[in-house]
Amino acid sequence: QGTRDHPPAHVVLRDRLLAAVVACFKRHGAAAIDTPVLELRETLMGKYGEETKLIYELQDQGGELLALRYDLTVPFARYLAMNKISTMKRYQVAKVYRRDNPATTRGRYREFYQCDFDIAGWFDPMLPDAECLKIVHEILSDLQLGDFLIKVNDRRILNGVFAVCGIPDSKFISTCSTVDKLDKMPWEEVRSEMVGEKGLSPEAADLIGDYVQRHGGLDLIEQLLQDPKLSQNKVAKEGLGDMKLLFEYLGLFGITGKISFDLSLARGLDYYTGVIFEAVLLQQEKEPGEEPLSVGSVAGGGRYDGLVGMFDPKGRKVPCVGVSIGIERIFSILEQRVKASGEKVRATETQVLVATPHKHLLAARLKLISELWDAGIKAEMLYKKDPKLLKQLQYCEDTGIPLAAIVGEQELTEGVVKLRDVARREEVRI
Amino acid sequence: QGTRDHPPAHVVLRDRLLAAVVACFKRHGAAAIDTPVLELRETLMGKYGEETKLIYELQDQGGELLALRYDLTVPFARYLAMNKISTMKRYQVAKVYRRDNPATTRGRYREFYQCDFDIAGWFDPMLPDAECLKIVHEILSDLQLGDFLIKVNDRRILNGVFAVCGIPDSKFISTCSTVDKLDKMPWEEVRSEMVGEKGLSPEAADLIGDYVQRHGGLDLIEQLLQDPKLSQNKVAKEGLGDMKLLFEYLGLFGITGKISFDLSLARGLDYYTGVIFEAVLLQQEKEPGEEPLSVGSVAGGGRYDGLVGMFDPKGRKVPCVGVSIGIERIFSILEQRVKASGEKVRATETQVLVATPHKHLLAARLKLISELWDAGIKAEMLYKKDPKLLKQLQYCEDTGIPLAAIVGEQELTEGVVKLRDVARREEVRI
Repeated sequence: QGTRDHPPAHVVLRDRLLAAVVACFKRHGAAAIDTPVLELRETLMGKYGEETKLIYELQDQGGELLALRYDLTVPFARYLAMNKISTMKRYQVAKVYRRDNPATTRGRYREFYQCDFDIAGWFDPMLPDAECLKIVHEILSDLQLGDFLIKVNDRRILNGVFAVCGIPDSKFISTCSTVDKLDKMPWEEVRSEMVGEKGLSPEAADLIGDYVQRHGGLDLIEQLLQDPKLSQNKVAKEGLGDMKLLFEYLGLFGITGKISFDLSLARGLDYYTGVIFEAVLLQQEKEPGEEPLSVGSVAGGGRYDGLVGMFDPKGRKVPCVGVSIGIERIFSILEQRVKASGEKVRATETQVLVATPHKHLLAARLKLISELWDAGIKAEMLYKKDPKLLKQLQYCEDTGIPLAAIVGEQELTEGVVKLRDVARREEVRI
Repeated sequence: QGTRDHPPAHVVLRDRLLAAVVACFKRHGAAAIDTPVLELRETLMGKYGEETKLIYELQDQGGELLALRYDLTVPFARYLAMNKISTMKRYQVAKVYRRDNPATTRGRYREFYQCDFDIAGWFDPMLPDAECLKIVHEILSDLQLGDFLIKVNDRRILNGVFAVCGIPDSKFISTCSTVDKLDKMPWEEVRSEMVGEKGLSPEAADLIGDYVQRHGGLDLIEQLLQDPKLSQNKVAKEGLGDMKLLFEYLGLFGITGKISFDLSLARGLDYYTGVIFEAVLLQQEKEPGEEPLSVGSVAGGGRYDGLVGMFDPKGRKVPCVGVSIGIERIFSILEQRVKASGEKVRATETQVLVATPHKHLLAARLKLISELWDAGIKAEMLYKKDPKLLKQLQYCEDTGIPLAAIVGEQELTEGVVKLRDVARREEVRI
């Protein structure tokens, strides 16, 4: 349930998509690592907030207690700590596992690919963070997925908002995950979850609502820096200062047009400590004057400065920021587009079929195809002793093989091969 | 335990190796599929003989009972049956999981890559089988791993041998796995396991011994076809007839020089029904006249005509033959070779570092690097506001970046960039 087999046409398309994403990661100087699908259970526990219950655990068959990785971020942090690495720019493309309710039509599976890029190390503020946003911008532009928006916020700003609204520290994380639902439900419902399930006072909820429903750019940052309450809060001020710097850098990259500072963005995971972001594709057809509707998140990430320290015996910290590209949702979109375009995706790359026009020529076919393979040419033949020529040519048409190399008695005698262009039905002797 | 993280230098090397293997699979017209790491437990049970105990099982967290795939063959057979596919040439490169005793120095892990190529369908005998052996020959030749030998046998011949030696059918499979140990232990020990653990009579064991210690080529096949006992056994005769045909095809491919018909080859898995084979690398330095010593299996496979039928509700059969390349062991060999050669494997592909010679030029760096990225150039910069030029050039040398693009006040004024060849210490203004 919630997993799927990928047939050849899928794999071909997906490999194209992954190649574009990996090309971007390499363009930004990232190195690849590979970590096991299996992690120690204790490595994963306490890192994913309410989502911890979605972790797949292995049966205790003796030895270590294991689980399947839930994302690529926690394994990366473990890798850095275990190997005492304090500076690294890495990417990883691999499958992760979540016992979620599958919604396969919307591209949500229990086994799915993640494509992660992360920058670890002590650096001047916001430079790696800005690069992560640049990467999201490049990938979504390269893939021509239509209009998109990258929402940005900062956990420190949110925490500051919660603090000045009178929420106790202990409720920050759970309030975060409620705020995070603002992209899926109206404020009224989010408010009632805050008051009902999370036990906030109606007054506090309303105060929060005044803040988290705002979004904008530099203007909003300036406005909040002047906010009488928020400007008194140390962490909020820090977050807002960094947000201003981030927008300056994004301006130099020329990409602020697609960035929105959005106070409703919270992201559910425990480990974020600073900037957080999420990219959404915008609905194509919209009425003039209407707010563009989001059709779903296709990338997300943020800063997690405390995670590596949780795995280091001495608690030694390594600040990190990273982004994860939601390849499955993008894949669904590309797949629909290919279907709509009528493009026929070939499952194989075979260049030539080695064929014979009559019986008793199997040896000639085997010798010729062997020569072609040894010369690096992608070649196939039918696994029949005496196939009919028509069947062989039909196979070319069915599978998109452009050429047939035909050897009959006459060709053998003359030491030539008849090369047939299958689509044009033209032949040359070579 | 038994798993490992792969650092960037590993991944670069491994990707090179996988690319060579996949290129060969594509050359032979295979299409790729991808199946989940998770399979239903019942799919895997009863397919791996004594090795079933090595399957990783997931905890029962509600829902289906799951396990991690043990190989790529059983998932492929399930895929064919589920999708009612009766003809397919496919490859798959993916990790598999075995709760084995890890021997990491010899490249044996609990999580490891398999590279599988399989041909499914009703075809004329031995044509797909011969292609599988050709593929092993091509890959081991392409990778220049030194001398190798591909041992070939047939389950039907082995079963015939067991039958004429008076072994009851019920003991065929367990006798098989004992015979299979002949490459690791001398006949005396194998014989005593047969008599002691497996309960064969000493006479039967000796009769088996007379057969399974033989290896050769066409001559041995002819000899066994004349064998008074074996020639009376129907399955053995079938197997020997096909073996003769196989050698004929391998002759046309020009590869019989590296193929040995070896009656001691048995392979442990339950599902094989016909031809089986295994490739071993031979020790490089050997004394003249000495038998070349095997240093381990690097590929193996065979025919499994009954497996797909086990997954089909109507028991509909699809004959299959396939090969699995033991990429981990080959990787260990290549890694040692790279180490010995002193080749420095770059972890990244960065072409240019964007650098500045003095302070207050961060904006210039950000603008230039953004232009480079947008032009598809692999570029990095240090994440510092005002890095020293020496530090920047040092970073190029440490990570193998060949060029530095330097912008200072003067360059900005003149609208140029100074491009420095890091190794030659030469600069041009462009």
